[in-house]
Amino acid sequence: MSVEVYIDHFSPPSRAVIAFLVETNIPYVVKEIRLAKQEQLSKEYLEICPWGTVPAIVHNNIKIFESHAIMQYLANAFNVKDSWYPKSLSARSKVDIYLHWHHSNIRGLLSGYVYNKYIGPRFYGTKYNQDLNDMLLQAQIVSLDYLENVLENGYVAGTQEISIGDISCYCDFSQMLIVNHDFSKYKNITRWLNYMKELKGIKEAHKVFNKLLPKIKI
Amino acid sequence: MSVEVYIDHFSPPSRAVIAFLVETNIPYVVKEIRLAKQEQLSKEYLEICPWGTVPAIVHNNIKIFESHAIMQYLANAFNVKDSWYPKSLSARSKVDIYLHWHHSNIRGLLSGYVYNKYIGPRFYGTKYNQDLNDMLLQAQIVSLDYLENVLENGYVAGTQEISIGDISCYCDFSQMLIVNHDFSKYKNITRWLNYMKELKGIKEAHKVFNKLLPKIKI
Repeated sequence: MSVEVYIDHFSPPSRAVIAFLVETNIPYVVKEIRLAKQEQLSKEYLEICPWGTVPAIVHNNIKIFESHAIMQYLANAFNVKDSWYPKSLSARSKVDIYLHWHHSNIRGLLSGYVYNKYIGPRFYGTKYNQDLNDMLLQAQIVSLDYLENVLENGYVAGTQEISIGDISCYCDFSQMLIVNHDFSKYKNITRWLNYMKELKGIKEAHKVFNKLLPKIKI
Repeated sequence: MSVEVYIDHFSPPSRAVIAFLVETNIPYVVKEIRLAKQEQLSKEYLEICPWGTVPAIVHNNIKIFESHAIMQYLANAFNVKDSWYPKSLSARSKVDIYLHWHHSNIRGLLSGYVYNKYIGPRFYGTKYNQDLNDMLLQAQIVSLDYLENVLENGYVAGTQEISIGDISCYCDFSQMLIVNHDFSKYKNITRWLNYMKELKGIKEAHKVFNKLLPKIKI
């Protein structure tokens, strides 16, 4: 049975779930939920995702939100290449470490930065906050230095093969294209970004986003 | 083989790991890493936890940080009651949803609030930020209303039995005792907090914290 996937192309975790589905050849059907139109708050969608965010999936009557939980479920439910979410305890723990570390250190700092500077003021009537902007830029240095070091010897979870973590991480980096952020001083991150962007799942997940990008860039 | 656990009693996720170990009767040895003395940045500790945070564990030469990844590993590696981290895909996905939702919605908003107001200025020389304080208080309303609703029918992950999520969530709520935050208007959260605080694992994990609390409360 196909996986029903509820996404908005401007949401990094939505793109991550699409990229993962394509990379793992899991059949899926996309349902768009436009955040800018507040479609995530409709009564029908809240029945699927009571927290009112994207992405969410429905599969065999199981409803799941939070992109990492979705990808963990999909990796467990379908026969995907082991490295995406390894079965061995030690290797799985590396991916779990990354998936939890990601929230405050990549999602919060990168996508939070774009939200404060652009997405919030433009689409949700929030006010740009200079202190928050500066705090996020400062904190990014610590997290990106750490990631740069991890990427010296493999992928973002410290593994030798690609995992769910890489998919999630890439999609928060691609959000930074909206504000033209320059990561070129990070050699390993840049090499990894160039590798990731050529994956067929990443390409498919960014089709609509990349098409609209020239119109919304600042 | 005992689990070596590196913690600081003032760190909510450190208390969570101790509470989980006690509740599941997993043998462990505590090693204190005092954050206020910056012991987490010592060369020896960075060999264990390259990200330089607490908690971390070492078990069978496997080194893990991030409290959720630690508890996921422990639940997988030891024979613990299934509800802590269920094996069925649908039930496990509920706990995974909670564990990921937690970061930005409980950890970030509750412990982030205490850090900005108290822990940072007192121990790390950071400056109290009024805008951040107000933003966190505002965002708390949405997350706590949601949690209040979930707790109407069970535990924080929407399950009928206690899970890793409850342990993690409680330890961020207990951090709010430092600033005497009042949650009494949330009836379900209050009932759940009163249930949780009587668990032997929670009691053991909060022994040192509760003892020092009167001296540091503001």
